[in-house]
Amino acid sequence: MDPKKTFDIPSLGPARFPSPLQLSNNSGDDLFNFVRESDRVLVDVSLSGFQQARESGSRPECLEKSGPRETIFFDPGKTTAAIVTCGGLCPGINNVIRSLVMALHYFYGVKRIIGVRYGYEGLSRDCPHEFMELTPDKVKDIHEFGGTILGSSRGAHPVSEMVDTLVENRIDILFTVGGDGTLKGAHAIGDEIAKRGLNIAVAGIPKTIDNDINLIDKSFGFETAFDVASPIVRDAHNEAIGAFNGISIVKLMGRDSGYIAASTALAMPVVNFVLVPEMPLKLEGEGGFLQALEDRLQRKHHAVIVVAEGAGQHLFDDDRRVTDASGNVKHKDIGILLKDRIQEHFGQSGTPVTIKYIDPSYIIRSAPANANDSLFSNRLAYQAVHGAMAGKTQFVAGRVHNRFVYLPISKVTDRRKKIDMEGEFWFAVLQSTGQPFKMG
Amino acid sequence: MDPKKTFDIPSLGPARFPSPLQLSNNSGDDLFNFVRESDRVLVDVSLSGFQQARESGSRPECLEKSGPRETIFFDPGKTTAAIVTCGGLCPGINNVIRSLVMALHYFYGVKRIIGVRYGYEGLSRDCPHEFMELTPDKVKDIHEFGGTILGSSRGAHPVSEMVDTLVENRIDILFTVGGDGTLKGAHAIGDEIAKRGLNIAVAGIPKTIDNDINLIDKSFGFETAFDVASPIVRDAHNEAIGAFNGISIVKLMGRDSGYIAASTALAMPVVNFVLVPEMPLKLEGEGGFLQALEDRLQRKHHAVIVVAEGAGQHLFDDDRRVTDASGNVKHKDIGILLKDRIQEHFGQSGTPVTIKYIDPSYIIRSAPANANDSLFSNRLAYQAVHGAMAGKTQFVAGRVHNRFVYLPISKVTDRRKKIDMEGEFWFAVLQSTGQPFKMG
Amino acid sequence: MDPKKTFDIPSLGPARFPSPLQLSNNSGDDLFNFVRESDRVLVDVSLSGFQQARESGSRPECLEKSGPRETIFFDPGKTTAAIVTCGGLCPGINNVIRSLVMALHYFYGVKRIIGVRYGYEGLSRDCPHEFMELTPDKVKDIHEFGGTILGSSRGAHPVSEMVDTLVENRIDILFTVGGDGTLKGAHAIGDEIAKRGLNIAVAGIPKTIDNDINLIDKSFGFETAFDVASPIVRDAHNEAIGAFNGISIVKLMGRDSGYIAASTALAMPVVNFVLVPEMPLKLEGEGGFLQALEDRLQRKHHAVIVVAEGAGQHLFDDDRRVTDASGNVKHKDIGILLKDRIQEHFGQSGTPVTIKYIDPSYIIRSAPANANDSLFSNRLAYQAVHGAMAGKTQFVAGRVHNRFVYLPISKVTDRRKKIDMEGEFWFAVLQSTGQPFKMG
Amino acid sequence: MDPKKTFDIPSLGPARFPSPLQLSNNSGDDLFNFVRESDRVLVDVSLSGFQQARESGSRPECLEKSGPRETIFFDPGKTTAAIVTCGGLCPGINNVIRSLVMALHYFYGVKRIIGVRYGYEGLSRDCPHEFMELTPDKVKDIHEFGGTILGSSRGAHPVSEMVDTLVENRIDILFTVGGDGTLKGAHAIGDEIAKRGLNIAVAGIPKTIDNDINLIDKSFGFETAFDVASPIVRDAHNEAIGAFNGISIVKLMGRDSGYIAASTALAMPVVNFVLVPEMPLKLEGEGGFLQALEDRLQRKHHAVIVVAEGAGQHLFDDDRRVTDASGNVKHKDIGILLKDRIQEHFGQSGTPVTIKYIDPSYIIRSAPANANDSLFSNRLAYQAVHGAMAGKTQFVAGRVHNRFVYLPISKVTDRRKKIDMEGEFWFAVLQSTGQPFKMG
Repeated sequence: MDPKKTFDIPSLGPARFPSPLQLSNNSGDDLFNFVRESDRVLVDVSLSGFQQARESGSRPECLEKSGPRETIFFDPGKTTAAIVTCGGLCPGINNVIRSLVMALHYFYGVKRIIGVRYGYEGLSRDCPHEFMELTPDKVKDIHEFGGTILGSSRGAHPVSEMVDTLVENRIDILFTVGGDGTLKGAHAIGDEIAKRGLNIAVAGIPKTIDNDINLIDKSFGFETAFDVASPIVRDAHNEAIGAFNGISIVKLMGRDSGYIAASTALAMPVVNFVLVPEMPLKLEGEGGFLQALEDRLQRKHHAVIVVAEGAGQHLFDDDRRVTDASGNVKHKDIGILLKDRIQEHFGQSGTPVTIKYIDPSYIIRSAPANANDSLFSNRLAYQAVHGAMAGKTQFVAGRVHNRFVYLPISKVTDRRKKIDMEGEFWFAVLQSTGQPFKMG
Repeated sequence: MDPKKTFDIPSLGPARFPSPLQLSNNSGDDLFNFVRESDRVLVDVSLSGFQQARESGSRPECLEKSGPRETIFFDPGKTTAAIVTCGGLCPGINNVIRSLVMALHYFYGVKRIIGVRYGYEGLSRDCPHEFMELTPDKVKDIHEFGGTILGSSRGAHPVSEMVDTLVENRIDILFTVGGDGTLKGAHAIGDEIAKRGLNIAVAGIPKTIDNDINLIDKSFGFETAFDVASPIVRDAHNEAIGAFNGISIVKLMGRDSGYIAASTALAMPVVNFVLVPEMPLKLEGEGGFLQALEDRLQRKHHAVIVVAEGAGQHLFDDDRRVTDASGNVKHKDIGILLKDRIQEHFGQSGTPVTIKYIDPSYIIRSAPANANDSLFSNRLAYQAVHGAMAGKTQFVAGRVHNRFVYLPISKVTDRRKKIDMEGEFWFAVLQSTGQPFKMG
Repeated sequence: MDPKKTFDIPSLGPARFPSPLQLSNNSGDDLFNFVRESDRVLVDVSLSGFQQARESGSRPECLEKSGPRETIFFDPGKTTAAIVTCGGLCPGINNVIRSLVMALHYFYGVKRIIGVRYGYEGLSRDCPHEFMELTPDKVKDIHEFGGTILGSSRGAHPVSEMVDTLVENRIDILFTVGGDGTLKGAHAIGDEIAKRGLNIAVAGIPKTIDNDINLIDKSFGFETAFDVASPIVRDAHNEAIGAFNGISIVKLMGRDSGYIAASTALAMPVVNFVLVPEMPLKLEGEGGFLQALEDRLQRKHHAVIVVAEGAGQHLFDDDRRVTDASGNVKHKDIGILLKDRIQEHFGQSGTPVTIKYIDPSYIIRSAPANANDSLFSNRLAYQAVHGAMAGKTQFVAGRVHNRFVYLPISKVTDRRKKIDMEGEFWFAVLQSTGQPFKMG
Repeated sequence: MDPKKTFDIPSLGPARFPSPLQLSNNSGDDLFNFVRESDRVLVDVSLSGFQQARESGSRPECLEKSGPRETIFFDPGKTTAAIVTCGGLCPGINNVIRSLVMALHYFYGVKRIIGVRYGYEGLSRDCPHEFMELTPDKVKDIHEFGGTILGSSRGAHPVSEMVDTLVENRIDILFTVGGDGTLKGAHAIGDEIAKRGLNIAVAGIPKTIDNDINLIDKSFGFETAFDVASPIVRDAHNEAIGAFNGISIVKLMGRDSGYIAASTALAMPVVNFVLVPEMPLKLEGEGGFLQALEDRLQRKHHAVIVVAEGAGQHLFDDDRRVTDASGNVKHKDIGILLKDRIQEHFGQSGTPVTIKYIDPSYIIRSAPANANDSLFSNRLAYQAVHGAMAGKTQFVAGRVHNRFVYLPISKVTDRRKKIDMEGEFWFAVLQSTGQPFKMG
C-alpha cells in the first residue's frame, strides 16, 4: 500500500486567503513559523524501522504536522463554524469547546459559532433543540465544569438530513467531538458533502476516555480518568484492610482496552490484581484468578482488584447468572460476576470474606479535566481549528510521539488501540501488582 | 424523672491519684483549669425552657462538662488501655485512634496501649487475631488515611467472653469506637464488669456517618461525608444536563436519618429533589414524587435527585422486585427502585429520559477525614481519655451546643436523632431544592 | 444595662403584609412553622448561669431566633434589594450572594435585585461603577468560584452619600457582607436612614475569615480557611523533614485572633508550635520560643511552626528591622521576623538550620467554600432575607449554640472574639502540638 | 561526531548472571520480552531528518531502549543498593524511592537496600547521619506523601570521600535522584569508580521540577507542579476580579526554563501574561510589558500575570532595589520587582491598582505526586533498576518520544532544555493568554 496516500488528509481545495495570523516563515526570529504541508513525523521511530525503510527505498509512513497554514481556505469573516459533542461524557469536552470558540473568534476572527445540542440528534431533521450561540463570554468559565454544555447523545441519524441541516444553516465547518462511532459518522458526513460538491470541512477531535483511539499517544480526559480513580482505589484499599479477608473490587471504564484500569494500578500501587479485556482470564482451577486471589489472602488477608468493564466477557457465555427470572439477559457486569464468583469460591472453602464492590464510572467521566488534560485539550482544539480553516476535512487532530499531527479519520477508526500484552506498560503493571504473569 | 439521675455518668469509684497534667484551678492565670464535676451545660437552651424550669423549681436537665479532672482514678504508669473499632467505616476513625494513643501516652504517661483487631471479634474467645501494639510512632501518620488500621467487623460476641479477655490481658480501660450497636455492646460490657466488681472503665466515642446519635450536635465523619459527596453531586448534575431529559440519582448513606443527603443538597445547590427516611413519600398520583419530577423536566429538561438509602422503605412492601427467582428477598435498594419507577413512568408517557444511577457510599465512608472532622476527632478523643482516666465508665464523649460533654451511653442509644420535618434545617433544604413541601 | 434591650433588633415598623411563604403555625403537621418574635435562645447555657439568673429573678440574656415571620414589612413585588460585599476576600461570599438572590427571588418574589460593585465605593457619589443586575440565571453557578462577583474594596465613604444613592435607586433593603468595619458602616447607614425617617432595612452577613466576630459560633469561610491550610501545612512538614534541622514557618491569617492557626494545627497534627496574637510570647531567654525550638530540634531535627499574622506584634517595637534604609516603617511581617530571628539564633550557636517560610494567605482567602461552609453560607443568607423582609434593620444573621439568630450590629462589633487562653480549645492545641504551655 | 559513541551507555563489563525475571524472547506468547541491547529509538523523528540520514548513509542518532536484560551483571542475592536524593523537593521522589525498593526487592531479590540521608552529605566522611535501611514494609505507604523520606541537601562533597563510603559499605549500585548538579556529581563518582577499577554502578533518575533536562520528554513532578499551581492561579484570578483594576502576580518555579509557568497558563486559561526566562522582556516604553498591561486594564480592569522565577533577570542589572541599606545584594525576586514596577508605573499615571503577589513555590514542590506523575515515577524507577542490574553505569533513565530509554549522564547535563520561542507550545501560550507576541 502507498503510505503517502494512506495518511494524507483530504482537502476541500487549494487555499485562497492569507492567514490573519501574524506569523513568520523564518527561523531565528523568535516568532512561530507557519507549518508547511511537507512537515511530517515518522510513524515508526525505531532504528530497525529506519533500517527497513532505508533498505526498501520507499518513503517511510509519516504523518502531517498540524498547525496554522500561511494560506487558508475559508474567509474568516464570512465563515460559520458549528460544534457538536456526541457519546458519553469525558473530562475535557468543555475545555475543547471553549478553546475551539476562542481560537475561531480571537485567532481567525470567525464571529458566528453555533453549538449543536445533544449530539448528532441536534443536526437531524425536525430536531426540537435549538442551536446555542457560542461566544467567548458564553464559554469563558466552562472549563471549570465537567460534562458538556451542549449536551450529548448516542446513536446515528440520517447523514443526508444532517448535511441538509449544515447547508440550511450555512455552516462551513463542523467540529465533531466524539469517539469511534462519532468519527465514523463524521466521515460519512464528509463523504456526503464530497458527493454533493459542497465546501464544508468536517474536523474531528477524538474523544475516548478509554484511550483506545488507534495510533494516537493519548486522548483527552484519559489522564483525568485515572487521576480521579486513584484516590477511590486508595480508599478501596482502606475498605479491604478494614475487614479480615477484606476484598475490594473497583470496576473502571474500558470496554475494549484496559488503559484506565492498568494506569490506575500503576498510579496507586495498592492494587493487587488488574483485569483487562486484552488478557486471557480464567477464574477456576490451577493458574486461575481465584487461586491467585486465595494465595494472596492467605499471605495478607486483604486484596484490591481493579477490573476494566470489558474484561472477561467470555465468562458470561454459559453463565446462568446472566438471565433473570423471566429469562431475560441481564446486563453483563463483570464486577458483579466477580463478586458473586469470589463469594461462591470462598463460601465453598469455608473462608469468610468481606467484599466491597465499587463502580465509580459516572463519577469519573463527569469530572472536570485535570491540569494536564486541560492543557492538552486546549492545544488539541487549536490544531483542529488551524486544520479546518486551511480547508482540510475528514481529519482528526491528535498527538503522536508527543507531536501534534493531523490524521485521516479513516486511519484512526479502522481498529482500536489496545494494551500490548508483551509491552513495557503491561509488564510494569504486572510488576507493580505482583499478580501472576498469566491467569488464563 | 429525676434529671440528675438521668444524665449522670457512672463511675468506678472515687479518684485516687493526682492528675499528671500541670493545670490550674485559678481563672486569670492564662492556664487551662481542671474541669469540676459540677460544671454542667443545659440541655434546653431556649428562653421558654428556662422559664418552665424556673417555674417548676427543679434543676433543669443538664450535662456533665468533659475535660481533665484534678484527681484521677487510674495510676497512669500501671494502666493498660485498649481500643476497638466496630461497624462500618467512617472518616476519622484513624484520627480518633491516633489521638487516643497520643493523649494516653503523652498527656498521662500510659505506656501500654493495645489495638484490638477487627471489632468485638478481636475480644472474643479463641479469636485468631493478635492484638496490635499501639505507640506514637506506629500511629503518627495514620490520620492521612481513611478506614481503620485496626480493622473492624459487625456483629455481637458473648459479653462474658469479652470481659474475660479484658481481664486476662489486664486491660483497665476499653475505648470503643462505634455506632448504636457497638455502644449498646459497650454498655453490656460495662454491666458485666460492674456485676463482677472489676475496675475497668468503658468509654465510647460515637461513630455514625449518618449523624443520627441522639442529643449530640454532630458525630465525626459526617461533615467529611457530605464534603466528599458534594463534587460527586456537582458532577451528577453534569451528567443530567449532558442529556435531554437527563436525570441523575445519587444514593447517599442514611438508614434512619437523612442528614447526609439533606446536607449535601444544601452544600451543592444543584440538587432538585432530596428524599429522606423522615419524610412521607408517595411516588404515583397527584402530589407524588413522579408528578413533581415530570413538572421539573418539562420546565428544565434535567434533574438531580439525592436519595438517602433509608428513604421510601414502605415502597418495597408489596413490590414484586424485592424477590429474586428463588423467592429470596433481595437487598432493598431505593436508588434502583427509583430508577426503575422513573423509567417506567416516563416510558408510559412516551417521554424519553436518560437516567444515571450513582452510589458512592463506599467511596465516601472510606475517605480520610477533612480538616474540620480531623480537628473534631482529635478533641473528642482527648475528652474520652480524660473521662476514662478519671474513672468514668459507660459514657460517651460528645458535643452539645458546641461544648464537649460526657453523656451516659444509655441516653444516646435509646433513640436515634432524626431530621425535624418542621425544623429550620429541613425548611432550608426545601427552599434550596425548590421541591414541593410535601410529596406523600 | 437591661439585657432585654441590649439584644433586641431594631425594626422599621409594624409588619404590614402576609408572608408569601406557605408555612404553618401548628406543630405536628410536618410543615415548618413561622418563627415567633418571642422565640429566644439563651446566651449563657451553663447551669451556673441558669442558677444566677434564677436567683436574680431577671430575664436572662437571650437572642432572637431567626427565620420567616408570618407578616412582613415589605411588599415583595414592589421591593428592591441591593447587595454589597466589602473588605478582603473570604470563601463563601459568592454562596451568600447566590442564596440571597435565590431567596429573594424564589421565596418572596422580589424581582429587582441590584449588585453594588466594589464595596461601599459602589454606593458613593460619582462612583464610576455601574450596578450589576442580579438574577437567578446570573448567579446560579457562582458558588463554584471563590472571590466575589461583585468585587470588593476597603475604606469608608460618606454615609450621607451612600444613603442618597440608596434613595435615588429606590433600594428598600441593603444587604452588607463584610467584617467589623463594614458592619460599623452598615450601622452608620442605618442611623442615617433612621434620622431621615426612611423605610430602608440594613442587614449584615458577618464576614471574617479570622472567625473573630463576637458572640457568634463561627463565621462563613473560616472552616474553608483551615481546610485549605491543612494540606499546605502537611506539605510544609515534608519540607521540614526534607532537610537536617529543617524548619517550616507557615504564616496564616489572624490579625487579632488566632483561630485559623490554632484550628489548622488541630486539624493537621504535624504542627509543633502555634503562635497566636492572644498569647504572651517572648523569643529569647529561658522559657522563650527559641529555647523551646532548640529543644525540639535536638530531639527530632525538624519542626513545623504555624504563626498567625497578628502574633507577637510587640516584638516589632524596638526592632531595627522594621525600618528600611530611608527610615520608613516596613510592613511588620511576623513570619519574616521569626525567620530572621531563628536564623540568627542558630547561627550564633553554630547549628545549621534550613528554614522555609510559607505565606499562603491569598491562596486561602480566594478559594471556593468547602461543603460545610457552602451549606452554612446558604442557611445564613436565607435568615438574613427573612429578617430583612420582616422589616428588621441594623442586624446581622448569625449562629449561636448551633441555632440561627439575629443580633444587633452594635453587639457584634463592640469587641472581637478571641481564643480563651484558659479554654478547652487552646488546651487541645497545646496538647496536640506538645509546645510549652507558656512561652512568654 | 560519531552518534553511536555519543549516546551509548557505559558498562561495568559483560553480563555474568541470568536474570531472575521469568520473561520471554519470543513475540506472540503474550509475555514481555527481554530488551535487546540493539533496540534503539531514533532521536530525530521528522521526515526531513530521515531523509538527511538516508542520504548521508550514516546511522542516525539513536537511544538505547531501556528494560530488563536477559543476562545481568550483578548477582542479586549478593548485591547492595543505595539510594540518595539531592537538591530541592519535587513531587514524586518518594514514589521513585518506593519503586526502586520494590523493584530491587521483589523483581531481582536484592535484600540489602540502603537509604542515604540528606543528599550527598550522607556519603561524605564523618557524616553524622546514619543510613536508613529500606524494606518494602518501610516504604509501602510513602507514595502518599510529598518530599523525601531520606531527606535531601544541596552542595558538593569530595568525590573521593563518597566513593570511599560506597566501598566501605560494600555498595554495588548507587541510585542518585537529583537535578543537573546531582547528575554531574554522579558522573564524577562514576569516573572515580572507573579510575579505581571498581564494580560499582551509578544510575541517575533525573529530578527537575522545572522540566529542563535536555532531550527528555518530561521529568517526574513537573506535571504535578502545574496541576497544583492551576487552582492557585484560578483563585488568583478571583483576587484580580475582586478589586477594580485588580492585578494578581503568581511567581512559579523555572530558573532557566519557563515550562511550569507556561503550562499552568495553558491549563488554567484565565492567565493574561506569562513571563519566562526564554523571552526577551522590557518593562517600559512602547511595546513593553507595562504598556501591554495598561491596555489590558483599560479593556477589562483586571489581569493575571504568571512569572517564572528566572524571567527578566537582566532587569536587576542596574537596579537600585537590588542592594539593601548596607550595600548587600538582595535576593533578586522578579515577582517583587514586577510588583514594585507596576505600582510605580500606575502610580505615576494616577491609576489606582490593587496588586496581589503570590509565591506558592514551596507549596508546589512539597506536594505529593498526582496520578500521572506517580505512574511515571514508578515506570522510570523500574527502568533504572533494570539498567543498573545489567551493569550499566553513568546513565539516566528517561523518556523520549514516549518511550523509555537510557541516556548517558553526560548527554543530559551538557545543556538545559528550554522552551522554543518558535515552537508550537509557546505559540499556544501566546494564543491562550492573548499577550503580545513580543514584549522585548
